[in-house]
Amino acid sequence: MSGNAFGTLFRFTTFGESHGPAIGCVVDGVPPRIPLTEADIQPWLDKRKPGTSRHTTQRREPDEVQILSGVFEGQTTGTPIGLLIHNTDQRSKDYGEIAQQFRPGHADVTYWQKYGIRDHRGGGRSSARETAMRVAAGAVARKVLDALVPGGVVIRGAMVQMGPHAVDRAGWDWDQVGANPFFCPDAATAARWEEYLDGIRKAGSSAGAVVEVEATNVPAGLGAPVYDKLDADLAKAFMSINAVKGVEIGAGFAAAGFTGEDNADEMRMREDGGIDFLSNHAGGILGGISTGQPVVARMAIKPTSSILTPRRSVDVHGQDVDVRTKGRHDPCVGIRAVPVAEAMMACVLADHLLRHRAQCGGF
Amino acid sequence: MSGNAFGTLFRFTTFGESHGPAIGCVVDGVPPRIPLTEADIQPWLDKRKPGTSRHTTQRREPDEVQILSGVFEGQTTGTPIGLLIHNTDQRSKDYGEIAQQFRPGHADVTYWQKYGIRDHRGGGRSSARETAMRVAAGAVARKVLDALVPGGVVIRGAMVQMGPHAVDRAGWDWDQVGANPFFCPDAATAARWEEYLDGIRKAGSSAGAVVEVEATNVPAGLGAPVYDKLDADLAKAFMSINAVKGVEIGAGFAAAGFTGEDNADEMRMREDGGIDFLSNHAGGILGGISTGQPVVARMAIKPTSSILTPRRSVDVHGQDVDVRTKGRHDPCVGIRAVPVAEAMMACVLADHLLRHRAQCGGF
Amino acid sequence: MSGNAFGTLFRFTTFGESHGPAIGCVVDGVPPRIPLTEADIQPWLDKRKPGTSRHTTQRREPDEVQILSGVFEGQTTGTPIGLLIHNTDQRSKDYGEIAQQFRPGHADVTYWQKYGIRDHRGGGRSSARETAMRVAAGAVARKVLDALVPGGVVIRGAMVQMGPHAVDRAGWDWDQVGANPFFCPDAATAARWEEYLDGIRKAGSSAGAVVEVEATNVPAGLGAPVYDKLDADLAKAFMSINAVKGVEIGAGFAAAGFTGEDNADEMRMREDGGIDFLSNHAGGILGGISTGQPVVARMAIKPTSSILTPRRSVDVHGQDVDVRTKGRHDPCVGIRAVPVAEAMMACVLADHLLRHRAQCGGF
Amino acid sequence: MSGNAFGTLFRFTTFGESHGPAIGCVVDGVPPRIPLTEADIQPWLDKRKPGTSRHTTQRREPDEVQILSGVFEGQTTGTPIGLLIHNTDQRSKDYGEIAQQFRPGHADVTYWQKYGIRDHRGGGRSSARETAMRVAAGAVARKVLDALVPGGVVIRGAMVQMGPHAVDRAGWDWDQVGANPFFCPDAATAARWEEYLDGIRKAGSSAGAVVEVEATNVPAGLGAPVYDKLDADLAKAFMSINAVKGVEIGAGFAAAGFTGEDNADEMRMREDGGIDFLSNHAGGILGGISTGQPVVARMAIKPTSSILTPRRSVDVHGQDVDVRTKGRHDPCVGIRAVPVAEAMMACVLADHLLRHRAQCGGF
Repeated sequence: MSGNAFGTLFRFTTFGESHGPAIGCVVDGVPPRIPLTEADIQPWLDKRKPGTSRHTTQRREPDEVQILSGVFEGQTTGTPIGLLIHNTDQRSKDYGEIAQQFRPGHADVTYWQKYGIRDHRGGGRSSARETAMRVAAGAVARKVLDALVPGGVVIRGAMVQMGPHAVDRAGWDWDQVGANPFFCPDAATAARWEEYLDGIRKAGSSAGAVVEVEATNVPAGLGAPVYDKLDADLAKAFMSINAVKGVEIGAGFAAAGFTGEDNADEMRMREDGGIDFLSNHAGGILGGISTGQPVVARMAIKPTSSILTPRRSVDVHGQDVDVRTKGRHDPCVGIRAVPVAEAMMACVLADHLLRHRAQCGGF
Repeated sequence: MSGNAFGTLFRFTTFGESHGPAIGCVVDGVPPRIPLTEADIQPWLDKRKPGTSRHTTQRREPDEVQILSGVFEGQTTGTPIGLLIHNTDQRSKDYGEIAQQFRPGHADVTYWQKYGIRDHRGGGRSSARETAMRVAAGAVARKVLDALVPGGVVIRGAMVQMGPHAVDRAGWDWDQVGANPFFCPDAATAARWEEYLDGIRKAGSSAGAVVEVEATNVPAGLGAPVYDKLDADLAKAFMSINAVKGVEIGAGFAAAGFTGEDNADEMRMREDGGIDFLSNHAGGILGGISTGQPVVARMAIKPTSSILTPRRSVDVHGQDVDVRTKGRHDPCVGIRAVPVAEAMMACVLADHLLRHRAQCGGF
Repeated sequence: MSGNAFGTLFRFTTFGESHGPAIGCVVDGVPPRIPLTEADIQPWLDKRKPGTSRHTTQRREPDEVQILSGVFEGQTTGTPIGLLIHNTDQRSKDYGEIAQQFRPGHADVTYWQKYGIRDHRGGGRSSARETAMRVAAGAVARKVLDALVPGGVVIRGAMVQMGPHAVDRAGWDWDQVGANPFFCPDAATAARWEEYLDGIRKAGSSAGAVVEVEATNVPAGLGAPVYDKLDADLAKAFMSINAVKGVEIGAGFAAAGFTGEDNADEMRMREDGGIDFLSNHAGGILGGISTGQPVVARMAIKPTSSILTPRRSVDVHGQDVDVRTKGRHDPCVGIRAVPVAEAMMACVLADHLLRHRAQCGGF
Repeated sequence: MSGNAFGTLFRFTTFGESHGPAIGCVVDGVPPRIPLTEADIQPWLDKRKPGTSRHTTQRREPDEVQILSGVFEGQTTGTPIGLLIHNTDQRSKDYGEIAQQFRPGHADVTYWQKYGIRDHRGGGRSSARETAMRVAAGAVARKVLDALVPGGVVIRGAMVQMGPHAVDRAGWDWDQVGANPFFCPDAATAARWEEYLDGIRKAGSSAGAVVEVEATNVPAGLGAPVYDKLDADLAKAFMSINAVKGVEIGAGFAAAGFTGEDNADEMRMREDGGIDFLSNHAGGILGGISTGQPVVARMAIKPTSSILTPRRSVDVHGQDVDVRTKGRHDPCVGIRAVPVAEAMMACVLADHLLRHRAQCGGF
């Protein structure tokens, strides 16, 4: 109830601050007898890990995850899965000089207003470091989906806009996503982004981004209307990620400009008895329930608030100050948000899969 | 857990189908000794009511709400507030011919896929008729906010885009919102929209929309990071409204194109000891917690799926059919979504106010 | 979160006061395509109804339940089931003279202390009238259990102690339970109780009771350790019933006096491959999970607090007063608590059945 | 939802198995700026720790707790508090020979039936080892109560029955509780119990117990009727503790034998304007809400199921076996259950304190 857990039946609870001894997570509700080891989780953490290119923060966090419970002889037991990552690169002195200041765009001021106290080291609880545990939980969710959905569910994300520069969708190739440091699905776009971001980084500035995630082979029927619609839960999941300011499903804001004729996803029967949708403006969700089409969601990420240019601000003593954020920061947090968004999609789908099983049985 | 309740401490649970005997709602968690009568709820329902102009559906629903419990001698008692609205205009024969068909863009097909049964009369549970109870719950939430926040919280919404036509923000005047049938804050824009929508309606077509809601005098400190951030809960609240496909907070998707310098909302101390923000790209929320600035959220609504032009579809027997939706429909559901969005904002704020009181005391 | 809902996946939310216009309930999470009409609910309400013999209150409440939603053409649709009972016998003037007084043993004083306001008519929300909706929800739960468990689950309760007089278990015959006004499983005991209770009633006094409920054909595997153990949820369910002061599972408090040798429920394989337990001190639950044996639970009910003999008390003005409760009261509330306890058992089992289905599949 | 969390606003989630690398806990909802260090938690763990006398298991578990998050410079920050205890004495070979067998009275058989897999080492998740984290969470709850309730809340427990031998209540002296290995409030009784338990232990047998917990200076008004009554939540809390088979509030089962005249707790005004109750059969709770009197609850604990005498059972292969449990076991688990029951009482009260604050404000 204090906001540190996500999901209902597939539910994870996280704890930990940026510069504390460790961050951790309890994943509850996982069905028994699903194969799971650290090796199922670590690759996703590595994908999010800082320092993999010059385009992300140069902090060094090996982010080695340890399973503390809930797994016996390589299989889940149905009991809660405790996950732990020790923090190793706690150079908290970097933050010393701004301990009393509120960095604009950061949660410094609101944590102070809400709690009257804050762990100022690296953002404390509000740091995006917390998202590592989302990725770990998401890795478990993927295992659940693969175990319960015949053929498995494929969830993959990409950056589709960096700063003002949108990807060229005509060149979309999922294989490209792993071939550049931006999770960009178009090689030509990636090259342009590289140049753009080098400029941003050298200027000590930062850039926003838009990330898109797609899930395919999602069974029809997932979602719990009317308040826990699949898209409502996805919107919450994405909006809860650090720096996210907008979420769309399918056509999203563009749908506002459509007419009813344009927007309708027409249907025809397939020969195998399934339903063929002739378009997917709905993003795979109607009335809050999955249609069986790909589920498509996007999120807008604001530029990193930590920049070198001084900004006007105030401090805990009620004094005007100018804040300049040194330290090691991502020039575009949108990059490392891609695996986080994928993970949240996985968690939402796993949760609704179990919820569907409870009420409607099956799979 | 089956998706028919919203909120945690200020929590409402709704029931009822479009063409059943009644729709209802239980509002739980309301503090005691808050003045409340039907007269506090009815005006908001009237604002959402169909048939108020030629631009909304011509169904006649008086939507008279009855308080069944939780109020004694004009004051809340702290016990659950039962609300009921009888359905009076149940012309379900209008829907007879499409009882076996799946209307494109509607939830017909997914309810069938999920539950294997559906109340096909007027959309049943998936009908926007359900949003009447959101408005009723929102009216109670407003009373809670007014009772607990000194000076009260002002929540007001407006349509800012109809079809492809955005409002002229230079002409924004909140007083205009009640002066035209579109909740449009600019008279000149309203005139253009009227012409546009007349064309749409006469063609049996439909238009999408964007709605913006603003809450002022929101105390700083509301929101429960990291998963129940204020913006995350708003995103869920808005995305759970029928036909919504996108949600933004503050600058929203535009923030993706900003640099860190542009995006920062700089701060200076006010003479009274409060903090002055020099801009509000954040939409009044940092790190998931309210800053004290106006909370600003928008949502994109797809065009009404019920249109006269035949669309290709399938039926419950697995046959291809062409569907043409007659009956009485809103050419732009975005209009009547304005009071619904306001209500959801009120409910989210009331919920987080109580949550804040639980953990941090005060107010 | 304000205490008016019970259960997680099979979840019901109630509202309504003793002397308001109606009481109601929303049952959520019910699987679709289960046959359900008012006729499935009414008989259980009739069993709890007052005025069926001279041994219960002479209030007249027909308690006619109406299904407002969630059912279409005689089958559940998976959407929330709204249930309503209008209050008809609201002789609130009976309570007029004690409106300002706190009746000892009643919740008058604590509602006042908590909320600073109370609906004093007939106990308001704290009245056992609320339990009618538990019985209605329990009737739905029975339908869920019967639909999902092959062979159905049988849930039946009995009074096993009235005042200081325990039933003679040697004479236990379930068929007797319906043959006397006490739900007593032994005819000879029932005769003794009748005499005893006539004396109590004529003296304007009241008697406590112990009620036992047994569920047979419960599948092994239900329960969610470690905090939502099946017995923990049963304990909460029973203790939440008005006037209950103790709960036991299986051997209960007697187990404290056993040795480990005596207490062990030994096992042997059955020829059909199932497990035969040679005793059932555990009451069908081990480690919080059902064993497949009968689930057995008991609850102790204090004597009705409304008695004719004056008791010392205080009033809302802080004055000492003597309170004498006239009106129409049950001399032994334990009698009408039997169908309520059965209903709560049904709800707990239905909830855990759905929870088990979510995590472990099956049934 | 899978049963590994307790509480709503003061909520803790535990994980870990008896013989895994660690057990842990996340405590969420703790108000900010409450002093907290490991030294506030460790003494309560030490009280529960095995091996403190010959009357408890001789396993050696230092049970050193580490705070991983949620505390900054000795104060809570309002963020989740991660707690960890490493398991050090994992002599799992002790359990090797019964890995395939179901020990009567243990959860071996039901975990197998539910999950189809179990961590058989020392009971795995079903081991009472889990209760260490309850004690840790309870220590945090005590700090919350002390910070928010003027004068603090005193919670203390005692054993009131060992095997068939009840304490002599005439000799009750809280100071004695810490002076003997049984948490017995009467020295003479403790001497008798010592002799009795020596006999039980030498015979390789075990004894049940009854534990009583009392909380004083509990504010009036705590509890959330009608389903989350304070006593209902206490009943669930106690019944969720390993080996508990019964729970009572106040007079408990004895109340069933009372008349209404005997049972009434009469009231008189105190000179200071408070209410004086002339007795406390209610155990400090009316209508599910605290009265301000001491909250009194008891629980019955079955004898330890691990005994030396062979018992008939079955194994995972469906074979009849005779099980004899060697290893190091508590002859009377009731002893070490005392601090666990105290902890659960603390957690329930802290939870309802926050819930009350949310709805009714104050303290």
